[in-house]
Amino acid sequence: MPVIAFIGLGQMGAPMASNLLKQGHQLKVFDVNPQAVEQLAKQGATASPTAAQAATDAEFVITMLPNGDLVRSVLFDENGVCEGLSREALVIDMSTIHPLQTDRLITDMKQRGFSMMDVPVGRTSDHAIAGTLLLLAGGTPEQVERARPVLMAMGNELVNAGGPGMGIRVKLINNYMSIALNALSAEAAVLCEALGLSFDVALKVMSGTPAGKGHFTTSWPNKVLKGDLSPAFMIDLAHKDLGIALDVANQLQVPMPLGAASREVYSQARAAGRGREDWTAILEQVRTSAGLARKI
Amino acid sequence: MPVIAFIGLGQMGAPMASNLLKQGHQLKVFDVNPQAVEQLAKQGATASPTAAQAATDAEFVITMLPNGDLVRSVLFDENGVCEGLSREALVIDMSTIHPLQTDRLITDMKQRGFSMMDVPVGRTSDHAIAGTLLLLAGGTPEQVERARPVLMAMGNELVNAGGPGMGIRVKLINNYMSIALNALSAEAAVLCEALGLSFDVALKVMSGTPAGKGHFTTSWPNKVLKGDLSPAFMIDLAHKDLGIALDVANQLQVPMPLGAASREVYSQARAAGRGREDWTAILEQVRTSAGLARKI
Amino acid sequence: MPVIAFIGLGQMGAPMASNLLKQGHQLKVFDVNPQAVEQLAKQGATASPTAAQAATDAEFVITMLPNGDLVRSVLFDENGVCEGLSREALVIDMSTIHPLQTDRLITDMKQRGFSMMDVPVGRTSDHAIAGTLLLLAGGTPEQVERARPVLMAMGNELVNAGGPGMGIRVKLINNYMSIALNALSAEAAVLCEALGLSFDVALKVMSGTPAGKGHFTTSWPNKVLKGDLSPAFMIDLAHKDLGIALDVANQLQVPMPLGAASREVYSQARAAGRGREDWTAILEQVRTSAGLARKI
Amino acid sequence: MPVIAFIGLGQMGAPMASNLLKQGHQLKVFDVNPQAVEQLAKQGATASPTAAQAATDAEFVITMLPNGDLVRSVLFDENGVCEGLSREALVIDMSTIHPLQTDRLITDMKQRGFSMMDVPVGRTSDHAIAGTLLLLAGGTPEQVERARPVLMAMGNELVNAGGPGMGIRVKLINNYMSIALNALSAEAAVLCEALGLSFDVALKVMSGTPAGKGHFTTSWPNKVLKGDLSPAFMIDLAHKDLGIALDVANQLQVPMPLGAASREVYSQARAAGRGREDWTAILEQVRTSAGLARKI
Repeated sequence: MPVIAFIGLGQMGAPMASNLLKQGHQLKVFDVNPQAVEQLAKQGATASPTAAQAATDAEFVITMLPNGDLVRSVLFDENGVCEGLSREALVIDMSTIHPLQTDRLITDMKQRGFSMMDVPVGRTSDHAIAGTLLLLAGGTPEQVERARPVLMAMGNELVNAGGPGMGIRVKLINNYMSIALNALSAEAAVLCEALGLSFDVALKVMSGTPAGKGHFTTSWPNKVLKGDLSPAFMIDLAHKDLGIALDVANQLQVPMPLGAASREVYSQARAAGRGREDWTAILEQVRTSAGLARKI
Repeated sequence: MPVIAFIGLGQMGAPMASNLLKQGHQLKVFDVNPQAVEQLAKQGATASPTAAQAATDAEFVITMLPNGDLVRSVLFDENGVCEGLSREALVIDMSTIHPLQTDRLITDMKQRGFSMMDVPVGRTSDHAIAGTLLLLAGGTPEQVERARPVLMAMGNELVNAGGPGMGIRVKLINNYMSIALNALSAEAAVLCEALGLSFDVALKVMSGTPAGKGHFTTSWPNKVLKGDLSPAFMIDLAHKDLGIALDVANQLQVPMPLGAASREVYSQARAAGRGREDWTAILEQVRTSAGLARKI
Repeated sequence: MPVIAFIGLGQMGAPMASNLLKQGHQLKVFDVNPQAVEQLAKQGATASPTAAQAATDAEFVITMLPNGDLVRSVLFDENGVCEGLSREALVIDMSTIHPLQTDRLITDMKQRGFSMMDVPVGRTSDHAIAGTLLLLAGGTPEQVERARPVLMAMGNELVNAGGPGMGIRVKLINNYMSIALNALSAEAAVLCEALGLSFDVALKVMSGTPAGKGHFTTSWPNKVLKGDLSPAFMIDLAHKDLGIALDVANQLQVPMPLGAASREVYSQARAAGRGREDWTAILEQVRTSAGLARKI
Repeated sequence: MPVIAFIGLGQMGAPMASNLLKQGHQLKVFDVNPQAVEQLAKQGATASPTAAQAATDAEFVITMLPNGDLVRSVLFDENGVCEGLSREALVIDMSTIHPLQTDRLITDMKQRGFSMMDVPVGRTSDHAIAGTLLLLAGGTPEQVERARPVLMAMGNELVNAGGPGMGIRVKLINNYMSIALNALSAEAAVLCEALGLSFDVALKVMSGTPAGKGHFTTSWPNKVLKGDLSPAFMIDLAHKDLGIALDVANQLQVPMPLGAASREVYSQARAAGRGREDWTAILEQVRTSAGLARKI
């Protein structure tokens, strides 16, 4: 079993480290919080006084820290990982940090001759404890294969995200979508309540439409994603219906900032001449706004 | 078979009327467009020169019109439905209009001694042709049962929305959610593209999380919907992650107006003291913003 | 002195009618509220039982009503103005209504052979009492000159807005700008407070910059308005500074939805290749978003 | 004349340094760009190979750098200012950076026994050349007075912002307000164009109202700023007028994201029970959203 250095024993890191121990890995741990270190030491880990010493002789170094500045610091500062790290070791950053910072870290490590990959995790601290995290692996195919046995001690599903920096990217996209969607869902639910409509009825209806199932696998695949913008439901009509919803909401004093923002996106699509295209053409509209070459 | 008056033979109305004919109903039709009327007459419908004459002797009057002002006009203006309508008939408005306008129409009809219900439809014009529309029935239990056989000639699924005006309400909520979600989904997909991440990978990950499955049946039922706001994922962290996503998007010049609006909602939740609550507490936050009594 | 019919004796209309009486005009008044009518009758006006009778023999008919539907109704419904109106009279709508509705009203009146203009007012009910309203006159040059003496009994400044429907348009633009600016100003002031900065200091600084003086007469005239987009202050830098402000605001839990929305507009300008243009190029960016032909 | 170290000779820094030289100051300069250094050396400045050497023997050290990370680096890194700085010297950061970063820099310098203040500048590079910058001085009264003669060589107006970190704060507020206002102004101007209204007419009207003059010195002082929320113009009416403007804009396909966001703020104010308060109560509404104790 390889020696693993584990740095960052917080709410997620501690149970992840525990699971590595349980699988029989030799663990050297470091954290600024001595109690967290002691806890792991009781379970059989070796306490290291510095990140550099934890990294010494380790085949894998795992970092699980609150932000990218801390990851940078723990790698490159005095007594940091790089001071003890072997050129043969693999550093696995499992923190959720800024993707462009991940890119710089990987580049900077490479320049020093070190190998690093990003494997942020999905799901919750309960899953960390159960060893059933979702592992979003960014790295070269070799890195992913090499890390897989270690990673699978902490999770039960590994997605190869397609290359270095791609693990943290897919984490970001997933979080963006789910966090913003949460706020949008709240607007719909509160409008429902203000209208005196049963949420169960709304849920029943939405569970059979893109409102509940999302667009990625329903309205998009046969339309915008294959370049067909002939209207199943026109942008103009979608814009009109949004206008009705916002008008109702404003009469009922339900603030809907996301809905309001989205109507202006549809308005822009109409101004761009897309009024009679399918509503999934909004994807092309947003691409154009972002300066990406127009596909359709 | 009862006599049915059908008013409004557009892209949706025409095939719906056809399906009623095919089921053996006697149909009297009216539209401002003579060609649309002629088309149905060829299929066996009786052309009526006015809405009033169409309504005369009809047991059911169905309206399928572009907006609420037209519905009002077709009911109450000179030569309108009310001039020919029997007190025993049932008017079924299947148009998608403003719900508060629906309420007024039902009230105004009632004052004149007439019975009216709202049954807007879901799905597309293809489903109208196939007779497989989703029927969102607003009305008293008696109205819904009375209308059911007629409605089922046009659709294959009927949802009893819970009372007069509730059909149009659930239509509105469903449309709001799906139309705004379409714009949000586009932001996520475009950010994905700008990050150089495979959309297939993103889709694979999102299909297992609220990002792809929605919140209504995943994160909400065991938390905010049953009054538990202990954090599985804290508002503070969701706010932080949204900030990272927006920062990345702004560096990559991907405008994300819905994402930007949603961050300010989370910011407001934090200002309201909800930072350490579960992210599903956003529902309570939006309720509070709308002036609804705080539940949790 | 001409006979004037005055319809709509609310918070604004009543003092406006009073001022017409004081200037010696003969006034026939109508309102649905009998007390409002009685009040004016005491001052010397003739109470009319219907709008039609008020309009009979009047040289001018002034309407001052809460919304456009009421204006339409008072003109065209049974016992409405048109039933009594002379082809030589001039109808002056002073209400604040939807401009596109104003256009339709003027057109519909013209089709019936009647002359109508729009003269909404600026300032407050105090100014209505003092007879110092701002008069925003939309009409042909002849209409404006004909109405001027009557109007100047109610206000002390008349702006010829440039043609029929232009009075209500300039009212709308002015209201839009001032109402939205109010919300934006609140965001700045609250961020100021959250930062522990004296508002007086902020005010002192802003009073010398576009922040306090607006852009129309400061940054725009010598740049975007004359087609010069060479940067005095680059879009890229403005975007960066907005990002800092939003980051600070989000750290301090000050929700700034307008600021957040504006950053995405700058982001879109950058995506459109305007990053190194002057910040006043935002005008061109918004024009492009609205589908207006690109000027610069 | 005191010795001054000047670090950061970019578009703003170079002319500012020149003006110090012209006023007879002894200047030691440092920049990573050797050409920028050479340029100043030709004008009589002493070129320093490091920031540390520039700081040695200097009574004032001025930094004018693109962002806060660079300021931190130039102060604390190897060969940085702190290595040469005297405990009697005063460091003046004139960069535009993140205010909370300014706070940390001042604190960190203080812990090392050094004195630092923030004096970002207003106006443009033309003013930097002319020596007519606006100086926004954050510092203790002693710091401000000590720095004044040096600062006045670069600008012609000094605002004492009220304490350490307040210079950068007032800069941030001013920039926020002017940059976001620029986008809002563009929305109004484009709606004006889409409505076919002369911009000159709109400008004439707005120049006499808060739309053109701002709210800080017009609508606010006698209302919300002195605790009077009795309505001169009600929130409910402002909300209604915004709704009309947005409806017109959406019909004309003019996207107005800031306007849309602002309507939701007014909607929230109404939901909070403020509908019949003066429109300036929006300030209190935004304060409440930010979790600040309700004043009124």
